[in-house]
Order: sequence, then structure tokens, then C-alpha cells
Amino acid sequence: MPSKFRPELTDTGLDPTIAVTAVDEYQNVREMHIADERPLTIYIDRHEIVTLMTLGNFPELLALGYIKNQGLISDITEIKSVQVEWDVNAAVVTTFSESSAWKENLGPRIITTGCGQGTVFGNVLEQLQNIHLQSPLIKQSTIYQLLKNLNAYNDVYKSAGAVHGCALCSSAEILCFVEDVGRHNAVDAIAGRMWLEDIPGQDKLFYTTGRLTSEMVMKVAQMRIPALLSRSGITQMGLKLAQDFGVTLFSRAKGRHFLIYHGRDNVVFDVGLPAPLASDPPVKADMA
Amino acid sequence: MPSKFRPELTDTGLDPTIAVTAVDEYQNVREMHIADERPLTIYIDRHEIVTLMTLGNFPELLALGYIKNQGLISDITEIKSVQVEWDVNAAVVTTFSESSAWKENLGPRIITTGCGQGTVFGNVLEQLQNIHLQSPLIKQSTIYQLLKNLNAYNDVYKSAGAVHGCALCSSAEILCFVEDVGRHNAVDAIAGRMWLEDIPGQDKLFYTTGRLTSEMVMKVAQMRIPALLSRSGITQMGLKLAQDFGVTLFSRAKGRHFLIYHGRDNVVFDVGLPAPLASDPPVKADMA
Repeated sequence: MPSKFRPELTDTGLDPTIAVTAVDEYQNVREMHIADERPLTIYIDRHEIVTLMTLGNFPELLALGYIKNQGLISDITEIKSVQVEWDVNAAVVTTFSESSAWKENLGPRIITTGCGQGTVFGNVLEQLQNIHLQSPLIKQSTIYQLLKNLNAYNDVYKSAGAVHGCALCSSAEILCFVEDVGRHNAVDAIAGRMWLEDIPGQDKLFYTTGRLTSEMVMKVAQMRIPALLSRSGITQMGLKLAQDFGVTLFSRAKGRHFLIYHGRDNVVFDVGLPAPLASDPPVKADMA
Repeated sequence: MPSKFRPELTDTGLDPTIAVTAVDEYQNVREMHIADERPLTIYIDRHEIVTLMTLGNFPELLALGYIKNQGLISDITEIKSVQVEWDVNAAVVTTFSESSAWKENLGPRIITTGCGQGTVFGNVLEQLQNIHLQSPLIKQSTIYQLLKNLNAYNDVYKSAGAVHGCALCSSAEILCFVEDVGRHNAVDAIAGRMWLEDIPGQDKLFYTTGRLTSEMVMKVAQMRIPALLSRSGITQMGLKLAQDFGVTLFSRAKGRHFLIYHGRDNVVFDVGLPAPLASDPPVKADMA
């Protein structure tokens, strides 16, 4: 099995926003950009798996990551190609064997979670039961530098809103940034890239603008990434899973602020912050 | 068939937040509240339908609304009872006939959309094809009063974040406000209440803190509500569906600001706004 093997991929990423007009409170007609949203149906060897609504930025990586994170296929060398055709909104994943062995991984049960009512095939939870990640030490100064570096991203969000952004980070460096109309899609596209390029997770940090619900933490743990940073809040089950998997969990990470909900011992406080100003905004729920 | 018929419901709404500690950037340990998130598996007559992750505030209404919005059962008098037992995280919907006729409505196809990767059973789209709603005239002053009235809500969001809120409104009056970890759950719970209490949609207005993706607009159209107001942004497909169904669409509604993306002719500009101040914040993407 060649270590450098990669499936053949089309390259059909689309322009993520379109221009439309809206009328504001002054009755002014304004040209606005809004996020695109289109269906993408994923097939494995002619079997229809799911239809995702996506921005369409990285459809091939999304298809790969979805298959990986749902536990349908675990070895990338089984995949011959991923071909996306927007004419028919299809991402066709072709395997070498066409064995349909992946069908066993669909399991009997659909669990839907998080912000929407997403699907996680039943076997994923089982696969995750034995995960215990080892978080590296993370410096406060690295967090601040990373948050600063992230300001250069979020392009679609800045122009159109209605998307969430996710980043795969090595220390303060952003290796990969993906936005999508679905948080889970953005995570899946990054998982697709990691799978494709054989990028290990254990020395990485994952950032998301979105909330840390159970499914987000599960997906990050599946990618073996031991540290998770969110601009938004967390839920009780997101926290519980982070504790179970050993994921260091930062929420409300923005500017100089953050809250560590799990893994405080993995954080090195190397920045001598001045005492908080009376004018300092409190940590607050600025984005669900 | 008695017009006042209602299924028998348990009343098992839970406290939506729990207290946990977190460590902030000053190494201070702070007591925070986070949103609860727990699985709820919906059964119809012993058939497992889906597992949703929910805040657990209105589980009976969520189960009802999910069944209604997925097009599984359309007549509430077919439903004998909805019983939620948190011991086993189950919402058991019992029908009178136990005919399993609803199974035909499951359809062959699962479409997953929006923020997460939610499921919409295939037949829903068909059912919606002939919907053309008639929006009433909506006054700008009513919008402002409604936005003001909404400030009294969003309790969970204010204390814990990580949830979205949805409201069913009659003019500026808020009839029902639901928060959930999933936007779609909050919409479904409101749909459940409308179904249960036979509340018509055509003279109502729907508010959400969440983004207007395709699935949100579809659900509001299913409830026959002709006007949709969001604090957040919209996607291209959310806009397209609003145009198709005739839903008047406001986005970025906050304070005095809003943007009308569809149905401008249904809005009466009855507020003489002063010219915008230079210090006025622009309409911006403050919440995905």
C-alpha cells in the first residue's frame, strides 16, 4: 500500500456568496452578500448516503470527511475517487472494491444532535468509547497569537454572516480554515483534508466560531485533536464528552478572554495580564 | 371528532442550565451556567423514529412538532398521548389506531440541512410545493415594539449561551418563546404547541435568533406563518424558499435595524427615523 496514496478528486469549490438587494429600516435599497446554500448528495458506489446543505466551498473534502467521521470507511486507500458534479448536486465516492462492506457501519440507529438535527450513525459512539487523548501544554500567549491570526479569516462570515468557521491549528499557525452554513460540515471538511493528507491530530488545536455541543466535541475527538477552542458557549454534554475524551476545552475565546472548562492543568499562564479594567466587557454570550 | 380534542401529555420540562466552574484568563475560578443537552428518542407506537439532542425544556411539544413538521402524522386527533420519561430519554407517542400508516411518510430519502446535518423526510418537500402564503401588512413600529418585547426573553441564552430562541408572535405580542440547543428543535416545539392548541399561523409572525437557512424557512412555511424575522443572517436557499412560499423575510433585526430580503411591499414604514448618526453601528453579522 503506497504511503503517498491519494484518491483522485475533482476541484469544484464554488464562490461562497451571492449578491442580492435588501431594503433597510430607512427604506434604502442596499446591495448585500448572502451565503450560498446548496444540496450535496453523497453516494458511495451508487448507494445514496445523505444529502447535506453546504456552502459548496470544499465539496470533495466534505464528502470525504463525512464518510470518515460517520465511521463508514476508515482506510483512505479503499477510496479510488471523489467526483463532484454540481449539475446534479452529487458527490460520488468510488471505492476500489465496491464491496459495500461499509454498509455494516450504517448501523440501525440514527442519532441527531446539536444545533440542527444532525445524523451520527450508531457505531460512531462505540468507536469513541476507548478514546483518551493526551493534551499537550498550551501557552496563554499561543492562544492570544492564534486568536489574532484568526482575524484574517472568516471571509464569508464578515461579508455575509450565516456561516460558521472552523480552523485546524498547529500552535498559533492556522493550517486550514473552512466556513460552511453548517458547523458540522466545516468540521467534516477539515477531517476530510486531514484524512486525505494524513495529517495527525494529536499535536493540533481546533478552533470553531460555533457552539460546543456534543457532536462537535465528538468529531474533534474522532480526529484525535486534544484541544478545542470556541468563540461561543458550550453545553453540558459537550463538556462531559470533553472530560471523557480528555479534550482541553476553551469557550468564549475572543480577544484576551477565554474560559477553560476542562484541562486547566494543560494551560500555561505565561502572560502577565494587567488587572481587568472597569470598562472591560465581561465574558458574555455574544454568539450562540 | 371533538374540536377540543387534545392528546394526553406528561409535563416533564427540565431546568435548562446547570452550574459548573471554569477558569478564566486571570486564572480565576468562576461559577458559570451552561446549557443542558440530553438525548430524547422519539417513538411512535414502539417504532423508533429519531433521537434529538435537546435542552429538555418542552420535550412533549418537541416530539409533537417533530412528527408534524416531518409530515409523519398530520391529524392530531390520531394521537392518544405523548409520554416522556427522562429515565430512559424517551418520548413515546401513542396513536389510537396503531396503524403504522405514518410509515409511508418516512419516504426513502433523508435530507440533512442547515446548521447541523438535520433530517427532513423526503415527502415534506412535496407537501410544501403548493404553499403560497399571503403576508399581512406589517408596521415598522410593530417590529420595533416586538424587538423590545423580546428583550424580556432569551433567559437561557443570557445565562448560558449555546442556545437559540424562537418566538411565535401575534403583532408585537409574544405568544410562546422556546429556546433549545438546536434551532430546529425550538421551531419544532413551537409547531407542537400550535398543533396541540390549534393555533393558526396565517396571522402570526415568527422570530428566531438563529440563521435563516433553507430548513428554517421550510418549517415556518409548514406552519403557514407568512412573516419571518431573524436576528441573524440568511442564506441564498433560505431566501429562495421565502420567495417561493411568499414569506416576508427580515434579517439582522435588532434594536432599530433590520433588512427586508423579501416582501418589502408588505411592510409599512410608519416610523419617522432620524437620519442615521455617524456613530450608528452598521448592520453587521453579529451572530451567525
